[in-house]
This record gives sequence, C-alpha cells and structure tokens, in this order.
Amino acid sequence: MSASANVSAGSATSAPFQVGLLGHGTVGAAFAALLGERAGEIERFNGRMPVISGVLTRTEGDFAEILAGADLIVEVMGGIEPAREYLLAAMRAGKDVVSANKQLLSQHGEELFETAREHGVKLRFEAAVAGAVPVVRVLEESLSATPIERIHGIVNGTTNFILGEMSDGSSYEEALAEAQSRGYAEADPSDDVSGRDAAAKMAILARLAFGTPVHLDDVPYEGIEHLHGNDLQYAHELGLGLKLIGTAERLDGGLSVRVHPAFLYPGHPLASVSGSFNAVTVESETIAEITISGPGAGGRQTASAVLGDVVSVMTGGARPPAPPLALRLVTDVENAFYVHMEVADRPSVLAALTQVLGEQGVSIKSVLQRGMGENARLVMVTHPVLESRLRAAMERISEFDFVRSTPRTIRVIEEEFV
Amino acid sequence: MSASANVSAGSATSAPFQVGLLGHGTVGAAFAALLGERAGEIERFNGRMPVISGVLTRTEGDFAEILAGADLIVEVMGGIEPAREYLLAAMRAGKDVVSANKQLLSQHGEELFETAREHGVKLRFEAAVAGAVPVVRVLEESLSATPIERIHGIVNGTTNFILGEMSDGSSYEEALAEAQSRGYAEADPSDDVSGRDAAAKMAILARLAFGTPVHLDDVPYEGIEHLHGNDLQYAHELGLGLKLIGTAERLDGGLSVRVHPAFLYPGHPLASVSGSFNAVTVESETIAEITISGPGAGGRQTASAVLGDVVSVMTGGARPPAPPLALRLVTDVENAFYVHMEVADRPSVLAALTQVLGEQGVSIKSVLQRGMGENARLVMVTHPVLESRLRAAMERISEFDFVRSTPRTIRVIEEEFV
Repeated sequence: MSASANVSAGSATSAPFQVGLLGHGTVGAAFAALLGERAGEIERFNGRMPVISGVLTRTEGDFAEILAGADLIVEVMGGIEPAREYLLAAMRAGKDVVSANKQLLSQHGEELFETAREHGVKLRFEAAVAGAVPVVRVLEESLSATPIERIHGIVNGTTNFILGEMSDGSSYEEALAEAQSRGYAEADPSDDVSGRDAAAKMAILARLAFGTPVHLDDVPYEGIEHLHGNDLQYAHELGLGLKLIGTAERLDGGLSVRVHPAFLYPGHPLASVSGSFNAVTVESETIAEITISGPGAGGRQTASAVLGDVVSVMTGGARPPAPPLALRLVTDVENAFYVHMEVADRPSVLAALTQVLGEQGVSIKSVLQRGMGENARLVMVTHPVLESRLRAAMERISEFDFVRSTPRTIRVIEEEFV
Repeated sequence: MSASANVSAGSATSAPFQVGLLGHGTVGAAFAALLGERAGEIERFNGRMPVISGVLTRTEGDFAEILAGADLIVEVMGGIEPAREYLLAAMRAGKDVVSANKQLLSQHGEELFETAREHGVKLRFEAAVAGAVPVVRVLEESLSATPIERIHGIVNGTTNFILGEMSDGSSYEEALAEAQSRGYAEADPSDDVSGRDAAAKMAILARLAFGTPVHLDDVPYEGIEHLHGNDLQYAHELGLGLKLIGTAERLDGGLSVRVHPAFLYPGHPLASVSGSFNAVTVESETIAEITISGPGAGGRQTASAVLGDVVSVMTGGARPPAPPLALRLVTDVENAFYVHMEVADRPSVLAALTQVLGEQGVSIKSVLQRGMGENARLVMVTHPVLESRLRAAMERISEFDFVRSTPRTIRVIEEEFV
C-alpha cells in the first residue's frame, strides 16, 4: 500500500508529495511546468503539495536516487526499455506509478498490471490512450456499474486531421504535409498513418473495458495510406463521412479488437469529431452510449492527463488493476462495407456481380453507378456481412475480365443506438 | 473517516458492503435491481460485495435502523425534506452518502458540503446533474489538474427532445405532447420547460467547477415555452440550431451562471446532441475543450450513475468536498443575439433601427429580411454585446410606431475553440 493512500484532505501542513519524473521531452517539460502552476490548488484540495523531487533525462539524474526520494514515479520517456525496467523496479519498491507510454502498456501490460497487483501499488495511464480525453477514468470508475458491450474510438488525432483535410478536397499527400507543418504528424508518420498507434491504444482500452489481456499483436489494423480522395467524394454523395475507427466489442461470447478506416453515418456520435480531436463512444445496455471527446495530442494536454493521474493517486482513488479474465479473441466479424470498383460498362456486368455477391451472402443496401466512357464506376454499400465472406466475394470478382481495377473496400459503421 | 476507505482490493472474503437505500421509486427500484446484477463483478474489483441492507419507502422501513446497519446511505427520494434531514443525520453519524437529489444539492449544497467536510465523510451526487453522463467525476478528478474557464451544458433531456421535434417542424404543443407520450416529460412539465431544472443542475456544476457556492436562486433562467417555430426556421436559414444551454463561466474576475435557449453554430460540440441526450463541454486553457455526452434521463441510467458513486466510495476515490472560494456572481454578460421583429416595410425603418442599435453599441453580423405584404420580417444576428445594452436597445425599438410586434431575442453561442 502506498504512503499516499493515508493522506486525508484538509491537513495542509503535511509534507510535500514527492514526484520522481522520468523523461523531460515535450510531455515531461510540460508536466513539470503544469505541476508548478497547479501545486497550490492541488494542495488546497488534497492537503499535500506535489513537488518534483528529481528528474531523469538521457544525460542527467540517477534512477536509484530518484526512486528512493519519491512518493510516486511519473514515466514519460516512451519506448520499451529502459521505461519497462524502471516502472517494474518502482512498483517492486512499493511506489505508485503513472505512465503515458502506450507502446509499453500495449506490449507489456499484463506484466505491469501483475506487478502492481502483487505489490499493492497503483498504476495509472490516462495519457497513454486519448490525450486529455479522460476515457480511462470513465471506463474504470463510472462504468464499473455497467457491463460494456462496445467501444468505438477515434484515438489518433493525426489521422483524423488528415482525413478531415482529404474530405475538404486535399490529396493524401497534401493533407499529410499540412499535418506535418502544423506539428500534428512526425517526419516519419508511419506509426500514425498505418493504424499501429491506434491499435496500441485500442489494446489498452480493450483490456480495461473487458478485463481480457490484449496485446498489440492481437489487434488487426489497417491505416489510411491507401485511401483515395475519390472514396471520400463518393461516400460524401452516399451521406457518409470517413474516420479511422478503433473498435473493441463483445462478439459471439468472445472479444473483437480492430482498427480500420470506416465510413460513419452522419448521426453517429463520432461523425462530427473534427480536426486532431480524439473521441471514444462507450456502449452498454444500461447506459445506452456515452461519448467523450477532446484534444488528443499536444504536450500540455498530455501533461494535464498525467497530472490528473497524479492527483488521482494522491486522493487514494486509483486502485490496483483487477486480475484478468479470458475472453476468446474473435477475428472474423460482421461489418457493412463500402465497395468501389471500375468495370466495363456492359449489360451483363451487374448480373454477374450480384450473383457472386449473393453466393457469399452479401446483400446490397445502396448503389451509385457513374459512366466514364467505356467503363463505369460502381460504388456500393452492403448490409452487414462477415469480413471473410466479403473478401471471398471480392476475390472472385477480381477474376472477372470486365473488372478494370482491384475492388477497394472500406467498412461502414451504422447507427445502432438512439 | 469512513470505514470504506480502508478496504483494500483483492480481499474477497471481507464482509459485505452494506448500502441503506432511502427511496424506492423509479430510480430506487432500478438501483436495487442493478446492484443485484452487478454485485459479483463489483466484488471482483473491490474485494467487497455491495448489498442492500435496508430500504426506506413512504410507508415502510425505519430510518434510524437502516442508518445503524449501513456502511453508506443512498438517497433517491427527491424533494427537500425529509431527504435533507436524513442526509445530514447520516453524515453526522460518520456515514458516506450518495444522492441523486438536484433540488436539495442546488438549494442546500453548502450545508451538505460543510457537514461532509466536518465529519470527514464522502458526499457523491453524479446522478443529480446529467444522468448517466459522468460529468461530476470528470470535473472533480481529471480536471483538478487544469483551471476551468467555461462550462456549456445541455442538462435537460426533455427540452432537448422538444427542441429537436420543433426543428423537425412540430409546434411547441405537439412536441411537448410527444415528449409526454414517450415518458420524457411529466404531466406537469413546468420544471423542465421553464429552465428551472437545468438551472439547478448548473448551480451544482458551477460549485464543482469553480469552487464558489451557487444557489439555485442565483441562476437566472429562461425556458423554451415562448419559442416560436418561426424562430427555428429562420435560424435554420442562418445556419444555426437551437438548444437550451446552461452556462457557467469565469467573467471579469467573477462567475456567471445562467440558463437560456441559445442558437449554436453547427461546428459547436453541443450542436449535434440530439433526442433526450445530455452533454457538457468543459473549456480550459490547458486542455482546450472536453465534451461528454450520453443519455440524460431514465431510471436505469440514473441508477447506473448512483451505483458508480457507490463503487467510487468503495474504492476510496471520492474525497470530501473542498472548502468554498468566493467568486463574485456576474449577471450582465456579453452574448451574440438573434433578434426577430416585424416592421412596416418602409424605406426609413432600417435607418432608424440601426441608429438605435448603434447608440447602444450593438453591431450587426447578419440580416435576413422578408416581405409579407405591407410588413417585413427582419431577423438579425448581432456581434457579442452586453445583455443590458441589447435590452435597452430593444426597449427603444419597441416604442417606434413602425414596429408591428414585440421584438424577440435569443442568445447565440459562437464557436470559440478549435
């Protein structure tokens, strides 16, 4: 049990609450500044003033010394090692820890959770999932009263910004360049645009919401690199908007966790999330759905989430993570699909297509056909169908000689609540 | 300090956590049912199983006996007395309490907070504000790291539903009847449609967010009874949507809390909140803005928020409320306004109007004029102006003989972030 659990509010003369800070990059520096600004107010609420008792950077500071003097360790270094080693050592020494490290939590989460449980310490990581959007807190506390059925999230602000620019007419390349010039995307954006960053966050959220260990490697993901401006334009005509969506849901007695671009109907709570914002929708039978949205990135926003975790530990609110359950991971799931293809403009074509689709149980909800000389563009939205069946149908369709380009498919999320 | 604060997670053989339930109406019955369903899962996370140890109804149960046997008291009776008396007695006996009672909290909040502080017990009231939307939790915990600048909320689901129906073409009377037939509105809807229910909730939110005592009587409110379908239609042409908005914001070194119908630009995070949903947007310099939305009413949703509070007390996360600060309450605030009037269709009219507006410092952002025989309808949107100055201008304008109907004014909220 940590020392902080015994602090009672109002005892303003208590010793300062010592925070050891590992990492002093953008987030670390912003955290140190924010903690300085808010220390007085936090003391007013919690009876102890938080102070930074030591900082470890690449070139300065000694971990053992920082650990010895700290009531709590904040890790904002990023990367797997030595962050993992330091957090494990801190928890084994009985210290509560706060981390913003999504790579680490999505790949070594169970080891960290297990160590926290064993040593009765707290492990908080709000900033690892959706920046300043307090989805971890809401999942852990408010929703402990309700069994969660599904989470949909826009958990990567970079790709949300790029898709917004593309739906305003930019090409993928132009949108990416704009994101880079605004500081939303790294020089090497592959972690964001490939969907891998979102997959890591969904692994963490799924563990929290469903109690089942989910490793980053368990999360199939698709990015936005291969989207065409055309897709956005056609979808617009169908009344759909495009987002990179992470999903975690109970399915067939198991759990499906995945990330892919998806078209949303305008009424969907995530459809109006714009710019570099993040948002998460939590669905359950009891509460229908709750949506939380806010800025997903930025040093100061992330620092604010880290400081929120520190305050949460100080008030005694955070608890060690619960032991895992084991839901089977489901990989073949039902989705509605948008399908784009170019075909020869001949009378027999639609009949041949619909026969193949029918054989695989794919039924069509809406079709948009547009002639382009000898060929035609065909854009369809299907009713929900197992991904494996749609894929089988697309493989058959690709073999027809009247098909002029490989069919492109993008998932469609329909409104289910409200 | 309450007994529950010493519970450590994992000790699955601990005694049950005894919950005394005051009130067994819609919410009380739903709470008892939900607690039964979730008790096992809550024990898995928190080490103790919550059970209902006693129930007080209008005709059955003895308060003193229920209190003596309880670790925590849940109050879902509603009304001021005897709910106030029971909650005070419970806290004086060292028991933590959870209440869903917005009337009580908005009128006797300081007495309750003070008693909780004095006796070192927890007082939770998530369900009193926005149903299943966990805005109290987010304000208290996540945002302790950031100074809040402004809250905008749709905190009354009944009026949001009615306004939605009206913007689809229903009259106020038709929309109200539909809300009543769906169970969203009471037979006597005056508390909802007058804005008083929303004002009570904003008083509670403002106390939380800004630490300043705010009584229901301190909150000026305007309802939706006097809105015309025409207003919604004209506003639609100006690209605006109409909501009943509660606002609490720092202003001129003080605090303004108020409730009134307001037009929102489509990009505003509250503009897309539909049906009987609630939503709250929290703005601060550090995190820009966070929006939380979900179902605002319903017995099971409210019960879920109450149970979330019970779990929060069990985990030791809730803390006694902080002592109050004292921000001055500001009543004359700047707003942009939509102004609707009918005037004689004569050349000198616009000149006379703009001169009066100019004298009061009211500047016009957009105008829509439409002839109707001898008269014309004039719909304007102003730039932000002090309410007192707009009111003065409207009084002068009402005196002109070319004005055919009393001018109607509705506030407009412009997008300020993102």
